[in-house]
Amino acid sequence: MKTGILLVLHGSRVNEWKEVAINYKDLLKEYFDLVEFGFIEFNEPSLRAATESLVKMGAQEIIAVPLLFAAGAHFYRDIPRLIGVNDNGEVDIEGKKVKVSIARPIGIDKRVAEILKERVEQVIESPRQI
Amino acid sequence: MKTGILLVLHGSRVNEWKEVAINYKDLLKEYFDLVEFGFIEFNEPSLRAATESLVKMGAQEIIAVPLLFAAGAHFYRDIPRLIGVNDNGEVDIEGKKVKVSIARPIGIDKRVAEILKERVEQVIESPRQI
Repeated sequence: MKTGILLVLHGSRVNEWKEVAINYKDLLKEYFDLVEFGFIEFNEPSLRAATESLVKMGAQEIIAVPLLFAAGAHFYRDIPRLIGVNDNGEVDIEGKKVKVSIARPIGIDKRVAEILKERVEQVIESPRQI
Repeated sequence: MKTGILLVLHGSRVNEWKEVAINYKDLLKEYFDLVEFGFIEFNEPSLRAATESLVKMGAQEIIAVPLLFAAGAHFYRDIPRLIGVNDNGEVDIEGKKVKVSIARPIGIDKRVAEILKERVEQVIESPRQI
C-alpha cells in the first residue's frame, strides 16, 4: 500500500509559511516517499489540491499530519472538510477511492521545549530589542 | 539580571490549548526559574497579564518566546502591541521599566520533523478513520 503524507499547515498572509512548508516537506521526504503540503487557509495549494496531487502520484491511502500543536476547530471540522473526505473516510479522486486518516497534532513533546529553550538562549547570547 | 520567560501561544476556542500552555510552561521551568504563558487571542491570561505576573514575581527583563513555527502578522505587530511594549522596547509596570525581547519562532528544525514522522507512524500502527 503506497501511503501519501499530507503535511497540513495553517497558512498565513505572511509568506514565511511557504518556506516552512517546503522545508518540512523536504525533511519528511527523508522518511516517506510521497509527501505534499497543503494549507488550511491563505496559501496555496489547498488541502484538496495537495490530496489530488498525492493520488495522482500514486498514493493509495493518505495520512494527513498537521503542523499544529493542538487540535482546534480546524482539526476536527475544517481539515476533513477541506480535504473532501466523505462519510466513509475516503476521498474520491477521478474515480479512485482513497482512505484518509488524520494523525494527532504535535501536542506536548520535550523536543519542542528544547527548541524553545534554544530560542531564548539565542536572545540572551545576542540581545536585540523589538 | 532575573529573566522572565513569556511563552506566547496563539490560543483557540478549543480548550486543549490551555493544556498545551500549562505543559510547555512546566517543561520550560526545567530550564528557567520564571516562566508564564500568555495567549494572543481567545484564552486567558493575555500577554499583558502574563507580563505583569512575571514582573511582579521579580523579572527584571522579559524574553517572549512564541510557540509558533513562523513569524506571521501576529509576530511582528500583535505580540509587541499586546505585551504593551513602548518605543524604547520596554514595558512600564507599576513604575518598573522592564526590557522586552522577542525570540525567533520555532522555524525549521529536524526534531519537529521527527515528531511528525512519529505521528504518522502512530496512524500506520493503529489505523483509525476520521
